[in-house]
Amino acid sequence: MAKDVHPPRGMRDFLPLEQLKRDQVLGRIRSTYRSHGFQEIETPALEELERLTSGQGGDNEKLAFRVMKRGEELERAIEANSDGNADTLADLGLRFDLTVPLTRYYATNRSKLPKVFKAIQSGPVWRAERPQKGRYRQFIQCDIDIIGESSVLAEIDLLTSSLHALEEIGLNDATIRVNHRVLLSNLLDDLGIPDEGKPSAMIIIDKLDKIFAEGVAKELGEKFGAKVAASAASWLALMESKLEIPVELQDLFRAVESKFGKGRLRFDPTLVRGMGYYTGTIFEIEHPGSGTSIGGGGRYDGMVGRWIGEDVPAVGISIGFERAIELVGDSLTQQVPGLVLVLENDSPEVIAAALKLQPALFEHGYAVRLELRPKKLNILLDSLAEQGFTHFASVGEEAVNMDSLVIKPIGN
Amino acid sequence: MAKDVHPPRGMRDFLPLEQLKRDQVLGRIRSTYRSHGFQEIETPALEELERLTSGQGGDNEKLAFRVMKRGEELERAIEANSDGNADTLADLGLRFDLTVPLTRYYATNRSKLPKVFKAIQSGPVWRAERPQKGRYRQFIQCDIDIIGESSVLAEIDLLTSSLHALEEIGLNDATIRVNHRVLLSNLLDDLGIPDEGKPSAMIIIDKLDKIFAEGVAKELGEKFGAKVAASAASWLALMESKLEIPVELQDLFRAVESKFGKGRLRFDPTLVRGMGYYTGTIFEIEHPGSGTSIGGGGRYDGMVGRWIGEDVPAVGISIGFERAIELVGDSLTQQVPGLVLVLENDSPEVIAAALKLQPALFEHGYAVRLELRPKKLNILLDSLAEQGFTHFASVGEEAVNMDSLVIKPIGN
Repeated sequence: MAKDVHPPRGMRDFLPLEQLKRDQVLGRIRSTYRSHGFQEIETPALEELERLTSGQGGDNEKLAFRVMKRGEELERAIEANSDGNADTLADLGLRFDLTVPLTRYYATNRSKLPKVFKAIQSGPVWRAERPQKGRYRQFIQCDIDIIGESSVLAEIDLLTSSLHALEEIGLNDATIRVNHRVLLSNLLDDLGIPDEGKPSAMIIIDKLDKIFAEGVAKELGEKFGAKVAASAASWLALMESKLEIPVELQDLFRAVESKFGKGRLRFDPTLVRGMGYYTGTIFEIEHPGSGTSIGGGGRYDGMVGRWIGEDVPAVGISIGFERAIELVGDSLTQQVPGLVLVLENDSPEVIAAALKLQPALFEHGYAVRLELRPKKLNILLDSLAEQGFTHFASVGEEAVNMDSLVIKPIGN
Repeated sequence: MAKDVHPPRGMRDFLPLEQLKRDQVLGRIRSTYRSHGFQEIETPALEELERLTSGQGGDNEKLAFRVMKRGEELERAIEANSDGNADTLADLGLRFDLTVPLTRYYATNRSKLPKVFKAIQSGPVWRAERPQKGRYRQFIQCDIDIIGESSVLAEIDLLTSSLHALEEIGLNDATIRVNHRVLLSNLLDDLGIPDEGKPSAMIIIDKLDKIFAEGVAKELGEKFGAKVAASAASWLALMESKLEIPVELQDLFRAVESKFGKGRLRFDPTLVRGMGYYTGTIFEIEHPGSGTSIGGGGRYDGMVGRWIGEDVPAVGISIGFERAIELVGDSLTQQVPGLVLVLENDSPEVIAAALKLQPALFEHGYAVRLELRPKKLNILLDSLAEQGFTHFASVGEEAVNMDSLVIKPIGN
């Protein structure tokens, strides 16, 4: 019975000090976004499965955890399910990102929201991925989105707010790669790739960092012929030597550079981003300390329209919290000084004396933890020092008040 | 397509101002508990279904949302599932409370935790209940638990910390009904109820507030005979006239009264609490503003032992956040003053000027929201005033700095 008591595969428990750090780092990101006038919202962890898998979530749809129907509905579904199609047995799914729920939320609540809606969402998402190092089946995302603003001001707001939030958690070296889906599409035209071939061409170009220029040219050639391979090769060579910011992105670069200086944005004509729903600018956040991107996003002007029947401009960016927090040092975590109030015994007098001391100790800025004196006090204090407690004081039978209480640092 | 875009049945979206209030009220509860030396932890939302439904969760086990197996495992389960037993198709479940996951967490991580472990958990739980007013299928619980302390100090710590937390959210009138499972068991002995009849007798007594003394005596009589009915009736009559705090609870009452005065704890010999796992004191939090309890808990010394093979004393209390927040006024919510920086247009010059003003406005304590001037500025400002924004200022082509920026209150 004692064996193998673990959280489910790919999911994690957080110990107190880990949790404190996670909460504070996420808190800093959230409060920075709030300071830029974004507003926090929350949606349920579950959405109708039909909605989650309606083609907006790309490959992630396949990774949705499916929740079984219940009661009579389940019985009916099983009876009807002679062909072994498991899909009819589930009706809900755990969200695999925060974007699909956000567009659903906007469709549900738009009459109560400001015309330009600037949302912060932070919380867990779930994906039934094959667990591997650094990939989890429950992980936190922190997104901001602007719905209802077609001007580049929205992109500028997202990127400057995010760079600010990353600085607030000590990631001053974060940079953002930027591209534009229209540029990407024009490029594919120039390379001679027909419209119907564009999605698979994008998937090939997206592999540039893994298979390099040669590999991309080769795979494009295999799919679209030698002529495309040749123009791709010369384009990739050109791209490595010299890049000009295209006119579509100049205002964005200029604004972000006015605030953060040069070098924090980088135009990358090979940036693809997996999701099919992007319609304009796309971005990916990088940091020299991380081998993978630590976030990303883009403009998805058509997505909200799927629920409400009219297109609404929208753009969002997501910080991959699990990737970002790996880069954040522990020095950022602030802990209230903790005092262990050691009760010599659990007689009513001693307990009442300890309770009476608590408010004054709170006023002195301490977190106050009551502990019954164990046989070996040092072991107790050492183990609590590991949890961040810094001081202790003893309360016994003799009357004690704040003046007579002896507060000592632990370990001296 | 536009029709019926809603969150799943029984689940809720939260609008920005609701979410702000929820976050701040929960934040106050959490920080009060932290000030008492409790530590926050987190477990995954999902647990192995087998563990969730191993009999520790009482009736709630039936309400667990079940997550379907995936991939080949699902295919195998469907093939093997000739008898239509849906249970074999699921392997995970959404947690329906925070206690079962906590005991699993303790079993997994106890070597890294302090000997007396004082945990705070706050987060959503899910129950597939028939939706009704005030009952949701996803809702937040906020629990504290002490594992590893058998002294009444643990109960005192839980109840004084919780009364303090409730006061911090303005619920100064919260009271706690207290009973003890051993007293309850002795009482049932005195009434002449055999051991095997005790669980159903407890269920009957638990209905006292719905069916009153007469109903309880009647139902006990139907089940256990006229003699039991008669002794139950006289016990219930006695109980209404005069109650003495039994010796088992005197230290607890004395300590809590030393801090909060008389009347905040109330001995209730009819308090049962549904869960089978309680072994000692049980409590239920009430407030005059609420028709139902707003929390509860008790001692469950045998539960951790199920996972690790040795009993560990444990006691916990849960604040039903959804019930509690209904009693909290909006005045508690604090909002950073929000300033709308209205850009006359989205030219690079105007955007750069606005971005340049932001840091100084942050320093002045404002949250600063960038908005492109719409045709009707008043409509924009009114809608943002509803969201808590209090001031605005305009940025146009002419050079502007903090000295020349005109900040006006919205609505004047």
